[in-house]
Amino acid sequence: MSKQPIGWKLTAQDGEARAGVLQTRRGAIETPAFMPVGTLGTVKGMRFEALESAELDARIILGNTYHLALRPGAETIRACGGLHRFTGWERPLLTDSGGFQVWSLGALRKLREEGVEFRSHVDGRQCFLSPETSMEIQSALGSDIVMAFDECAPGETAHTEARRSMELTARWAARSRARFDILQREEMDTGRRPEMPESLLSGAQALFGIIQGATHEDLRRESLARTVEIGFDGYALGGLSVGEEKRAMYEVIEMLAPLMPAERPRYLMGVGTPEDLLEAIGRGLDMFDCVLPTRSGRTGQAWTSRGKLNVKNARWATDTRPLDEACACSVCGRHTRAYLRHLYLTGEILASILLTHHNLAFFLDTLRRVRQAIWSGVFTRFRQEYLERAASGVE
Amino acid sequence: MSKQPIGWKLTAQDGEARAGVLQTRRGAIETPAFMPVGTLGTVKGMRFEALESAELDARIILGNTYHLALRPGAETIRACGGLHRFTGWERPLLTDSGGFQVWSLGALRKLREEGVEFRSHVDGRQCFLSPETSMEIQSALGSDIVMAFDECAPGETAHTEARRSMELTARWAARSRARFDILQREEMDTGRRPEMPESLLSGAQALFGIIQGATHEDLRRESLARTVEIGFDGYALGGLSVGEEKRAMYEVIEMLAPLMPAERPRYLMGVGTPEDLLEAIGRGLDMFDCVLPTRSGRTGQAWTSRGKLNVKNARWATDTRPLDEACACSVCGRHTRAYLRHLYLTGEILASILLTHHNLAFFLDTLRRVRQAIWSGVFTRFRQEYLERAASGVE
Repeated sequence: MSKQPIGWKLTAQDGEARAGVLQTRRGAIETPAFMPVGTLGTVKGMRFEALESAELDARIILGNTYHLALRPGAETIRACGGLHRFTGWERPLLTDSGGFQVWSLGALRKLREEGVEFRSHVDGRQCFLSPETSMEIQSALGSDIVMAFDECAPGETAHTEARRSMELTARWAARSRARFDILQREEMDTGRRPEMPESLLSGAQALFGIIQGATHEDLRRESLARTVEIGFDGYALGGLSVGEEKRAMYEVIEMLAPLMPAERPRYLMGVGTPEDLLEAIGRGLDMFDCVLPTRSGRTGQAWTSRGKLNVKNARWATDTRPLDEACACSVCGRHTRAYLRHLYLTGEILASILLTHHNLAFFLDTLRRVRQAIWSGVFTRFRQEYLERAASGVE
Repeated sequence: MSKQPIGWKLTAQDGEARAGVLQTRRGAIETPAFMPVGTLGTVKGMRFEALESAELDARIILGNTYHLALRPGAETIRACGGLHRFTGWERPLLTDSGGFQVWSLGALRKLREEGVEFRSHVDGRQCFLSPETSMEIQSALGSDIVMAFDECAPGETAHTEARRSMELTARWAARSRARFDILQREEMDTGRRPEMPESLLSGAQALFGIIQGATHEDLRRESLARTVEIGFDGYALGGLSVGEEKRAMYEVIEMLAPLMPAERPRYLMGVGTPEDLLEAIGRGLDMFDCVLPTRSGRTGQAWTSRGKLNVKNARWATDTRPLDEACACSVCGRHTRAYLRHLYLTGEILASILLTHHNLAFFLDTLRRVRQAIWSGVFTRFRQEYLERAASGVE
C-alpha cells in the first residue's frame, strides 16, 4: 500500500496527556476521543442526525463483529454495500474483532489454537471465529478501523494462564495481520465495492493490535513488544476494566503507556466512567469506548457534572430543574427532572432517548473540554476541579 | 369572557371538503388536521424537536386525562405549571376527557349518574371521574382544547341502550360546560398561573362537545341538537371506529356533518387510516387523531403511498430501497428497508423511532396534500388517485 490508511498527529502535550488529530478516510477525529458504542449498527436510542449535530458531534462510532456476524450476518451487510451503506452512517466506524464477546460467552465457547467455537447467544447455532474469519467479516463490514482478533484475559487472571492467553493473542495478532493484508490487497486490486469513491479506497482499512497480559507487568511488556514487532496502525489495551481494582488498571496504563509507540493512537478498550477517562488521559491514552452513557440512559441513570443522578428518585417528582444545570444539551435546555422521571416510570421510549442523548452529550462535551485543557496546558487543574465537582453530589 | 378562546375560519371549500385555519392561543392549525396522540405527555418514540421540524410540523398533539390523572397525577402536573411546562411542548395541546378510556375498561368500571367509579389499570386503585373532576383535571393540565366528559356507546349498541347512553352524555355535557365555565372564571380572576404570559390567558381554554348515539340516526340527530343547544367551541363525533362497519361510520358522518355548525371545527375522534381520513374529509370533517401511525411504528408496520409495508418481511433482507420511494422524510432519505428490518428483528429502539417518524411524516404530509387539493378544487380527483395508488400494493 502506497499510503497510510490513517495518520495521527500530536497537536499538544500537557504532562503525559496528549491532544491530537486522527485522520481517517472518512474524516478527522480529535483526540482524546470518546467513541459511542453501536453494537448492532445503531447507537441504541439515537438517530444519526443527533450524533452528527454540533451538540454531540460524535466523529466515530463502534460496530461489533460478533453481534453483526450473527444478525444480520456479514453476507447481508456485504450485499448492502458494507456497514456504512447498510446503516446510513457516513462518518468513521471502528469494529471490534469479536474476541471480547466470545470470551464473555464463558462456558458456551471452546478455545483452540485455530480459533473459537461457540454457540450463538441468539439461537444456539454453532459458530466459529478465528483471526482469519474476523478479518474477513470486518472486511465485509468495511469499517475504517479494524481490530485484531485477541483472547481477553481479565485483570485478575493468574500468571500461568495469563501467559498462555497472551502468547495465543500474539500468534493471533500475526495471523490477523497476515489475513488482513491479503484482504486489503484483494480489495485494492478488485475494487470490490464499486459504489465506494476512490478517495475512500485509498489506503483502505486500518488495523489496530491489542495488548493483553492481565495485570502482570512482565506479560504486558512482552505483549506490547510482540504486538509492536508485528506492526499496526494503532495500539489498544485490552483486558482492562473487567473485574480488577481501579488502581490496578491505572497502574497497568501508567506502566505501559510511555512504552507504546508515541506516533500512534493509543486506545483503551471498553473504558469507562468520566473519572476513568481523565485518569487514562492523564497517563497518555487517546481513544475510548464504553456502553456506560447509552446503557445508563436506558436504566434511568444520568451522568452530570455533580456525579450520577438516579432519575427514578421520588425527590424529583415536581423538580422543574434540568438534569444538570451546567449542561448545555438540548435535553437539559427543554426538559425537567420531573418529566424525565415520569417518562421513565411509565416505561416510555422517550425516557431512553432523552437520557441517552444527555449522557452522550455529557461524555462528548467532557472530552471536548479535556482537549481544550490540554491545548491550554491546564489539564492537571482541570482534572482536579472536575473530580472534586463530580464528588460533590447532585443537589 | 370578552374573547373567543379559539376561532376557526374557512379558507376553501371543495364539495363538502373544507379547508380552514384554527386559531388558538398557542398558534394556528391548518385544517383538515391530523393530531398525533401523546397519551402520557409524549408522542411515543418522538422527540418534540422532530414533531416541530419543517418535515413533520405537527401543530397540535393530544394528551390523555385518564392516563395523566393516574400517572403522574394532576396535582404533580399542576405543581409543575401545567402540561406544557411539565413536558416542554409549547404548541397547542388537546386533552380528551377520559370518557373513552373509562368506557374501554369494561368490567373494571361502575357507571352512575354522578360519574364513573373504576379501578386504575396501573395499580388497581379505586378512582372516580365525572364531568366535574374531568374539567378540574383538564384545567390543571392547562390544555388549549378541553373535551367534555362523555359516555361512549360503540357503533353496534342497540337502540334502547344507545338512547340511555346518549341522554347521559347530554346531561354530562351540560355539567361539563357549567364546571368548565366556573373554572375559567376562577382562572381569569386569580391568574393562578403567574408564569403564563397574558396573551396565553386571554380567552383561556376552549371546550368541545361530543356527539354520541351509536349508528342510530335519530339518536345522533338528537345528540347533536342537545350538544349544540348547550353551546361549545367545537363539536366532535365520538363512538365511531369502535367495532362498527366502515360503511356504517361513513353513513353517520355523511348524515351528521351537514347538520353540524358550519362555523365551528368538526372533530372525528380516534380515526383513522389515511383512507378513513379522506372519506371523512370528503364529508366535511376537519380534525382527526389516531394512534395508528405511532402504534404501527412500534409493531413494524410502515404506511406508504402504496399501502402498508410489513418491515419484518424476509423479502426486504437486502433491499436497499427506502420504505416509500415517493416519501421525502428523513428516514426515507437515509435508511433502507434492509436496515429497518434488521433493527426491528433485533429489538432495537431505533426501529420504533424511525418507523414512527416515517409514519407520522406520511400522515402529516398526506393531510398537507389534502389541504392543497381542497385549495385547488381538485379534492375528488386527489382522493381517487390516492386510493388507487394505496390499493396497488408495495412492490
